[in-house]
Amino acid sequence: MSNVTRKDVAKIAEVSEATVSRVFSNHHSVKAETKERVLKVASQLNYYPNVLAQNFAKRKSGNIGVVLPYIPSANVFSNYFFAEVLQGIGEVTEKNHYNMVLLFQHESNPMDYEQYFLRHEIDACLILGAKHREEEIRNLEKLHKRNLPFCMVNQHFSSQEFSEVDANHEDGSHQVIQHLYEQGCKKIAFLNGPLVFSNSSDRLAGYKKACKEWGLPLLEEFIHYGDYSRTSGYQKTDSILTLDMDAIYCANDRMAIGVMRRLEELEIQPGKDIALVGYDYSDLSRLVTPTLTSVEVPFREMGKHAAEKVLNDIAHSKVEYKQVKLATKLIINESSLLV
Amino acid sequence: MSNVTRKDVAKIAEVSEATVSRVFSNHHSVKAETKERVLKVASQLNYYPNVLAQNFAKRKSGNIGVVLPYIPSANVFSNYFFAEVLQGIGEVTEKNHYNMVLLFQHESNPMDYEQYFLRHEIDACLILGAKHREEEIRNLEKLHKRNLPFCMVNQHFSSQEFSEVDANHEDGSHQVIQHLYEQGCKKIAFLNGPLVFSNSSDRLAGYKKACKEWGLPLLEEFIHYGDYSRTSGYQKTDSILTLDMDAIYCANDRMAIGVMRRLEELEIQPGKDIALVGYDYSDLSRLVTPTLTSVEVPFREMGKHAAEKVLNDIAHSKVEYKQVKLATKLIINESSLLV
Repeated sequence: MSNVTRKDVAKIAEVSEATVSRVFSNHHSVKAETKERVLKVASQLNYYPNVLAQNFAKRKSGNIGVVLPYIPSANVFSNYFFAEVLQGIGEVTEKNHYNMVLLFQHESNPMDYEQYFLRHEIDACLILGAKHREEEIRNLEKLHKRNLPFCMVNQHFSSQEFSEVDANHEDGSHQVIQHLYEQGCKKIAFLNGPLVFSNSSDRLAGYKKACKEWGLPLLEEFIHYGDYSRTSGYQKTDSILTLDMDAIYCANDRMAIGVMRRLEELEIQPGKDIALVGYDYSDLSRLVTPTLTSVEVPFREMGKHAAEKVLNDIAHSKVEYKQVKLATKLIINESSLLV
Repeated sequence: MSNVTRKDVAKIAEVSEATVSRVFSNHHSVKAETKERVLKVASQLNYYPNVLAQNFAKRKSGNIGVVLPYIPSANVFSNYFFAEVLQGIGEVTEKNHYNMVLLFQHESNPMDYEQYFLRHEIDACLILGAKHREEEIRNLEKLHKRNLPFCMVNQHFSSQEFSEVDANHEDGSHQVIQHLYEQGCKKIAFLNGPLVFSNSSDRLAGYKKACKEWGLPLLEEFIHYGDYSRTSGYQKTDSILTLDMDAIYCANDRMAIGVMRRLEELEIQPGKDIALVGYDYSDLSRLVTPTLTSVEVPFREMGKHAAEKVLNDIAHSKVEYKQVKLATKLIINESSLLV
């Protein structure tokens, strides 16, 4: 490790040690030419200020924590939602010279987010894939009480005023039903995800609202639940097919593609024999045959917004609670155009 | 922030302050019952030892840096290789109570990895998507000289003895050509990726070796280069089709799927009119129609190996240079079974 000290740099650059520190903390009072001289000497001597020590003094880690669910059997990164949100966060942290620290939350062991702040491992926290459950809310309330910067992504808690960046999933769902109705579908089965996620319950609300609006039957047996995996889509297909229906709307593309696989085995053609719609408008939706009608969600933008929000809190040393909801957009493809 | 000090804990638990510290540093000399009492009091008082201060004393950050290429237009997380390697690394760091810090490397601005060590932001470094170029090697040599733990993933530098976890891409390529030869293909076009990646040059070596072995023509015009994107596969297809050939072998699934899209437009059927093979055996290869023959690479295992390797270096306070090469395996699907 480097043994060069601030003193060495100060001596050779012919400035005081305090000036060296001011250069490295980017203090505006240092003259440009002095700054340049100090940086040049520092570079020649291979001197780096010890960021850890600096951060310790400032009580800042320079890290933004990003909480992801830990699912050993699946791959969270290959999931379109997580991949896109992470990319958005990465673009913002990168530009602002923050590191992105990934924190994995185990299903059986909800994370006490506060500890990461208390141990000065992170300065702010972005939470992806959170579920509506008591421990989660309790852990978030602790952050809230201490005024620690955090933001939920694609999840909201109606009972709380936490900061969140969400998308309008109720309207997304509404657009799907309107489109299917316009295609002549009268009985629309809905394969939703678990209701612990607010995006699932928002989609359900949109489905119900639109069905009522167009006088479509709203039967409990038309609503099914998967776990957002391809396998669950595949497995639920047979029981959905026992219904008298003309369209299947799935709450994400993965489940829709699972449904598609099973329909293919049964020689039922989406876009011809039945209308099929997914959600997320992931790259998968464009790769399958027939191409899948889906709802575009600005996940990358959501990640950016959330990161900018907490960085803003840090910069102003003040946490502001803010709820943002971005628009969703139906993208019509072959699977729902009944010919 | 918590204002409870070590002194408070010591007082209530009726032990010395040194004992509190020994409990939190997991020192074996503390009796089990004392340890339990201290931890209970600490928990009641909401006391956490300041990890940042502790790490500063030990000069450890508790972070493993993971270097990823920064590609604003694309999404690195949605790429099968990166998603799988990250998942593998995450499983190991998680189990060993390390944080995973993502560091984005800009194409135009090679990263001076050493700085992250000098600033005590990371204890070890795993490098994904590295290219064979001078600055890269220079930056890696700096780590090497200082005995800092690092490991390359899916990349090797023949001129250097760096630690690396790679896969046998030469053999993967060889298996592809053997399979195509057995299908009766005699003229195999190869759409490779850029040769700055060792996996591209290894695949080329395997292609050449196998062609020679089976007496297939080895013509320069049969070898094309894309950039591993779907778009590049799509765009290169027309010039490949001007050749007199009966099979197209692509160096990854993304390019193969791009080729597939263009063939579809031209009404040329892979698996019937022409044999098509990809590489990586990503989930995409199973979603397209026809399903894509591809080469399975144990990316997740590679991530795990690399993470275990550097954690081992840290644990033993000694860097050992080690090269690992895992096996690849051809998976035969519809796109190459000529009927």
